[in-house]
Amino acid sequence: MENRAGYHVAVLGATGAVGREMVRTLERHAFPVASLRLLASPRSAGTLLPFSGEQLRVEAVNEHSFDGVDLALFSAGGSASRQWAPVAVNAGCVVIDNSSAFRMEPDVPLIVPEVNGADLGHHHGLIANPNCSTAQLVLALEPLKQRFGLHRVIVSTYQAVSGSGQRAIDELEHQLQAWVRGESVAPAVLPVADAAVHYPIALNVLPQIDHFLADGFTKEEEKMQNETQKILHAPRLAVSATCVRVPVVRGHSESVYVELEEPAEIPEIRDALRAFPTVVVEDDPDEQRYPYPLMCAGREETFVGRLRRDRYEERGIHFWIVSDNLLRGAASNAVAIAETWAEAVHG
Amino acid sequence: MENRAGYHVAVLGATGAVGREMVRTLERHAFPVASLRLLASPRSAGTLLPFSGEQLRVEAVNEHSFDGVDLALFSAGGSASRQWAPVAVNAGCVVIDNSSAFRMEPDVPLIVPEVNGADLGHHHGLIANPNCSTAQLVLALEPLKQRFGLHRVIVSTYQAVSGSGQRAIDELEHQLQAWVRGESVAPAVLPVADAAVHYPIALNVLPQIDHFLADGFTKEEEKMQNETQKILHAPRLAVSATCVRVPVVRGHSESVYVELEEPAEIPEIRDALRAFPTVVVEDDPDEQRYPYPLMCAGREETFVGRLRRDRYEERGIHFWIVSDNLLRGAASNAVAIAETWAEAVHG
Repeated sequence: MENRAGYHVAVLGATGAVGREMVRTLERHAFPVASLRLLASPRSAGTLLPFSGEQLRVEAVNEHSFDGVDLALFSAGGSASRQWAPVAVNAGCVVIDNSSAFRMEPDVPLIVPEVNGADLGHHHGLIANPNCSTAQLVLALEPLKQRFGLHRVIVSTYQAVSGSGQRAIDELEHQLQAWVRGESVAPAVLPVADAAVHYPIALNVLPQIDHFLADGFTKEEEKMQNETQKILHAPRLAVSATCVRVPVVRGHSESVYVELEEPAEIPEIRDALRAFPTVVVEDDPDEQRYPYPLMCAGREETFVGRLRRDRYEERGIHFWIVSDNLLRGAASNAVAIAETWAEAVHG
Repeated sequence: MENRAGYHVAVLGATGAVGREMVRTLERHAFPVASLRLLASPRSAGTLLPFSGEQLRVEAVNEHSFDGVDLALFSAGGSASRQWAPVAVNAGCVVIDNSSAFRMEPDVPLIVPEVNGADLGHHHGLIANPNCSTAQLVLALEPLKQRFGLHRVIVSTYQAVSGSGQRAIDELEHQLQAWVRGESVAPAVLPVADAAVHYPIALNVLPQIDHFLADGFTKEEEKMQNETQKILHAPRLAVSATCVRVPVVRGHSESVYVELEEPAEIPEIRDALRAFPTVVVEDDPDEQRYPYPLMCAGREETFVGRLRRDRYEERGIHFWIVSDNLLRGAASNAVAIAETWAEAVHG
């Protein structure tokens, strides 16, 4: 399509779980799209996806796909990003990359706009979108950091299968359908598609997301540490994560313990969180109000509840964060970066 | 039935999720049962349950149910325990109670036999079985306490619906069946059967188990704190829990952070855990070996994996515990208490 004033936009990985949400989010946010090019591997080319009342045909990505494109949203995995980001940047396109390929490179800004949108000023054509579990964490941590300081963070996650892509969603669905029929299907995708061993996720939880590192942490757990430090400009902040996959389609949950630099009362903490953009405090034990994945799916905010003081550590607080991993954790954050970029460049 | 040398045993709440496992565990362990009386509310009376090749009829509990009974295993909820435990004890019966009714009473021993079986010496007819999420936690903590000392514990749980009883299992199954048909059914049991508000558990996680306390913790979270302190004889140990229900039928998982009194290397920690009875170390990242609920269902051991040092706190370690909440967390622990009691009294 090419029919309005605005930017020439491409989405790479348009048929994936995140890619489809990127297309929907561009439309829902009324991002100024002059033309939209949907790109994917040759395998997915030809798929039709709806955008603004039209059916757009997905094209196989090639060396000329980014010619004349102003802005490309990438969500096709790390190797696709490594292959095509240089091509796109050389063609003069700004790339917002949802893979982990470039996130920790010093000259690539890693952005959650509400937290460190100002870091966008320094990009060289490539801007990174954080890991889904990191995005919602830093949105809850930044207001606490600003008001009380952060001493340390310990987080255990409850991550939805969609964080591992459409094949993982399909796998959970097939396993549940088989379970209802009293049958079973061999797992082939989770915990990690290209790992040697697979385990069922239906009626199960798996304490592995991504591959293991030498010290026993997983790459996902290290990403939460490294990316949180980078986004918060807190390179020495102690962030320790345990990342766990649960049989949920959409919505990552996180059980978080934070030691603040200064003790704070829960009402002050609640106020600090409430005042922060896109953070919603959903926290009323008397009314059994707290966030949970089915409540947050399809919403762009980050929901915080179960706020309470630790009973032993004066500066310690516990809380529970839920957000839609395909939106705030991926597509919505990418579009929010695009909006911040557009504002900065042409606002 | 009444046909062998041994103890006259009763099970109260025999038709519940835990009660059925108690009957099976008595048989599997070849506990010396001279007679077995199955008791329940009038609603469940008449149900037939298999035991040692016979079909036993469940009787409605009454004032004479415990006459001539040596040992009663109770798992019928707190109010049934409060009503019937005094009756049973007055009849000269020793009661092993799986409810939370008496656990924290100073003259009631709260027992995980491998950890504090010696506390059994002081009972007055009533012995308490801990909360399911506590039993597996203390089994992993005790060997660490003995070798390295415990400074603090922070735990986030992933608890199976069977911890909330047969109705919660049925609710998850009905929700999943409806989901596969593209339908939905109104939740009525979880998170807490007698609470005002219910939420779906299928394809969801719920950060509430039991009712809320004034400071924002739930009773389940407080139980994990109080019961752990009591069983470990560590009344001031900092234990902070976040308890979460996940759509798993059987098998509680726990993400645990512990600060030891002294720094320790992972191989030493692994050795200490391996040497402890009924604890199994299932921990080999290179082979993707770690415990998960579907692996542990139907087994009586407590499985520990994902052992690793914290990257910031020298004395800090992280690990992951899984155990069958109906067995080690309830029925097997109750029978293990019975075995320890029988050994002490008549061994």
